[in-house]
Amino acid sequence: MSENIVNSKKNAGNYAADLVIDGNIVGLGTGSTVLYTMERLSYRIKEEGLMIKGVPTSYQTAVRARNLGIPLTTLDDFPKIDIAIDGADEVDSDFNLIKGRGAAQTRERCVAAAAKQFIVVVDESKLTKKLSAVVPVEVIPFALAVLCDKVKSLGGNAIVREGVKKDGPVITDNGQIEVDCDFGEIDNPESLETELNNIPGVLSCGIFTEFKEKTVVIAGNATGIEIL
Amino acid sequence: MSENIVNSKKNAGNYAADLVIDGNIVGLGTGSTVLYTMERLSYRIKEEGLMIKGVPTSYQTAVRARNLGIPLTTLDDFPKIDIAIDGADEVDSDFNLIKGRGAAQTRERCVAAAAKQFIVVVDESKLTKKLSAVVPVEVIPFALAVLCDKVKSLGGNAIVREGVKKDGPVITDNGQIEVDCDFGEIDNPESLETELNNIPGVLSCGIFTEFKEKTVVIAGNATGIEIL
Repeated sequence: MSENIVNSKKNAGNYAADLVIDGNIVGLGTGSTVLYTMERLSYRIKEEGLMIKGVPTSYQTAVRARNLGIPLTTLDDFPKIDIAIDGADEVDSDFNLIKGRGAAQTRERCVAAAAKQFIVVVDESKLTKKLSAVVPVEVIPFALAVLCDKVKSLGGNAIVREGVKKDGPVITDNGQIEVDCDFGEIDNPESLETELNNIPGVLSCGIFTEFKEKTVVIAGNATGIEIL
Repeated sequence: MSENIVNSKKNAGNYAADLVIDGNIVGLGTGSTVLYTMERLSYRIKEEGLMIKGVPTSYQTAVRARNLGIPLTTLDDFPKIDIAIDGADEVDSDFNLIKGRGAAQTRERCVAAAAKQFIVVVDESKLTKKLSAVVPVEVIPFALAVLCDKVKSLGGNAIVREGVKKDGPVITDNGQIEVDCDFGEIDNPESLETELNNIPGVLSCGIFTEFKEKTVVIAGNATGIEIL
């Protein structure tokens, strides 16, 4: 990763961490930009005595948070949370998102839905006029072939994401399979999201269009951030 | 179970088995009425040399099918199948269904969606003017409390189905949790189905409204069947 990108992520991640206030229950997204947020939260906990609890969206994030001394909790204890901070693979000018490079989009969607405020942290290279990134879809293994057929009928191309075993799939934290679906430029993200989420056996796709009203996008660049 | 109910199930189950023809790929639902279908299919395989393959909708059904000598296959090998035969907890006069007493509604939905024809076998006591049975919902454990809150906000009452461990949940074949949601009489099954299926973390609810065009309901009674 270029130094510019690293600094862009760090600037966005740090800024988001400074939006958190004492007593907050904080959704912790999955990915490299949120890691900067968590490092900054860890610093604030140690240096400022900040009192928060985090709800991790993946096992990876839970491990990182524990290593950083961020106290954790669950949606079972807090079905409504104050603020969720998460990354994105792509953000369009209407705040539609593509997420799921970390194969965590289902839990990320749960946490975003539970949060009063949804802070999206990205480096500015993730901003786009129109979504065109690959759309990750989490599906039960039972329905894998059916999903791939359906994606084809929707004009897309589905590739099962390779996991740690060669030719084997990524198994998600929910025990399912992650499939990367390429639709090229996406004309209508809302309808594609609905189509994909309603395929039998699908847990969640990576298109997020329903949180716009509570979304703030923090786009980092080499020297600072822009709030959208 | 009363003798009348047993005979009603058997009559419906047997009739459906006789709709299967040589070469069919057959979706095998989960439950007591489909067990009669499978017993009759087993008989036809042995006595008539019927050549079929079954796609089981649960581990329970797979075990039963193997014990009965019904060859099995998967949706991976056959993403489109000829006929699916499945039970239901309730069937209304518009062919809306409630399913999921066997905690298998997600795979049952996949198989129903993949089938050219969907045969619903029930004893006649399952027929109703308006759906009012408890609606099973399969959800990832991560989102359990959020689901229960959401069901409450939709006017329902959610109870986690108890599994083999006292106070512990039923774990589904997909590794998730089964929640029974009581909404009383359901005025609009289509919209409730959509609402429930789109709660983040939900795999599938037990309301099926989208297969009407390819559905045939076989309602068994003590002395025969009625085709709806």
